[in-house]
Amino acid sequence: MQVEVIASVNEARSDDMAGKTVLVIDVLRATSNMVTGLAHGCLGIVPMETVQQTKQLQEPGDLLGGERNCRKLPGFDLGNSPFEYMEPRIKGKRILMTTTNGTRAIQKSSRAHTLIACSLLNVRACVEAAVSLGRDMVILCSGTQDVFSMEDGLCAGAALDEWSRISGRDWECNDFGLAMLACFRHNRDRLHETMLGSSNGKRLARLGFGEDIAYCAGLNQLDVVPVLHDGTLVHSATVLK
Amino acid sequence: MQVEVIASVNEARSDDMAGKTVLVIDVLRATSNMVTGLAHGCLGIVPMETVQQTKQLQEPGDLLGGERNCRKLPGFDLGNSPFEYMEPRIKGKRILMTTTNGTRAIQKSSRAHTLIACSLLNVRACVEAAVSLGRDMVILCSGTQDVFSMEDGLCAGAALDEWSRISGRDWECNDFGLAMLACFRHNRDRLHETMLGSSNGKRLARLGFGEDIAYCAGLNQLDVVPVLHDGTLVHSATVLK
Repeated sequence: MQVEVIASVNEARSDDMAGKTVLVIDVLRATSNMVTGLAHGCLGIVPMETVQQTKQLQEPGDLLGGERNCRKLPGFDLGNSPFEYMEPRIKGKRILMTTTNGTRAIQKSSRAHTLIACSLLNVRACVEAAVSLGRDMVILCSGTQDVFSMEDGLCAGAALDEWSRISGRDWECNDFGLAMLACFRHNRDRLHETMLGSSNGKRLARLGFGEDIAYCAGLNQLDVVPVLHDGTLVHSATVLK
Repeated sequence: MQVEVIASVNEARSDDMAGKTVLVIDVLRATSNMVTGLAHGCLGIVPMETVQQTKQLQEPGDLLGGERNCRKLPGFDLGNSPFEYMEPRIKGKRILMTTTNGTRAIQKSSRAHTLIACSLLNVRACVEAAVSLGRDMVILCSGTQDVFSMEDGLCAGAALDEWSRISGRDWECNDFGLAMLACFRHNRDRLHETMLGSSNGKRLARLGFGEDIAYCAGLNQLDVVPVLHDGTLVHSATVLK
């Protein structure tokens, strides 16, 4: 089996993902929020590229979520903090979500056979689902404004660590993936601290989102696997056999 | 002080290097060869982009070195194995060298204040020289065909490990650099083994260059610092005050 880890959205080419299982990662905070929302009872999450599209698609009952430059958007119900995606009002609702990098990464992966939204919170569950699909895998780190982000690399490394635990030695990976695996293994006991020293970690802490970082650093806290089905991220149980 | 690590040549922009100290890394094998040649008495090494340019610039006494697709070039004196750069015939000679990725990285760094050719063999000496220059630093991993190479990442991480040892906590680095530092620290006691598992390591071993990998994995075996001066890499002692 082949695994390829891609460092940021602008390095991703749709062709390279065709027919594969793709894990999209945006730890701070898009995919962490998606997993959290589904774990707390929302019906599904629709990743949207632009603010305008998001507003246009809204139907009665839908909630709008997302950010630009780490800030909640005017007229939106939810921002980009995972704690908002735990609120009782999301139960049974569809959430239309647009974020700077994470939803762009999902759009870019449209040719995947199966697209899974992965974060540190649910990485083990995601990889178990991916291995059971029996296809080559691409791990797409969203990054920030086309630049690699440490927290996404840590999550990619965590995914490879799980993958190697399950698959044994029967897999190959590009050099960037091997480097992320080593980076994760070096930092596995200090994920939160490492994230606080990263570019996004420092920026979010400055903006007052320190608790978001602590929450998003929680390895394998949730066993929800969000899978894209007809443009909406839903619980894998409703899609994967 | 700011340090930025760049993953491969095609991500490098000359503007980002203007006025800075730039360490160019191509562990397998261009910069390892350059360091080895200078350590064994060659006069200087002129990095050239094309085979044609290399032949045109040759003057009596000059040696031609380099490769395309890991192989020695027709009519050239030296190929791309470090053991060739230890031969007595290089003593006192100028070597014109063209390689696929390493010399391209050097060309791309033309606006650097000081350009240093760095490999695992001489990384400590390079960083000591770089720190003494007191400027922001860019570490450019050459990579292979525009793709990140593990061995260059390990060397970038080793450079940051030295940098942090000398500079203490008084420096900042991009996320990619922090990831390479963690990758090096995780693998520092098994550099050779890690390189054998990398894409270039596997390819070179298949082609019969296993001993080159073992040699190039030798951390801090040489204290030569090749610095670019008027288009030629020479001993730093002749250039840096």
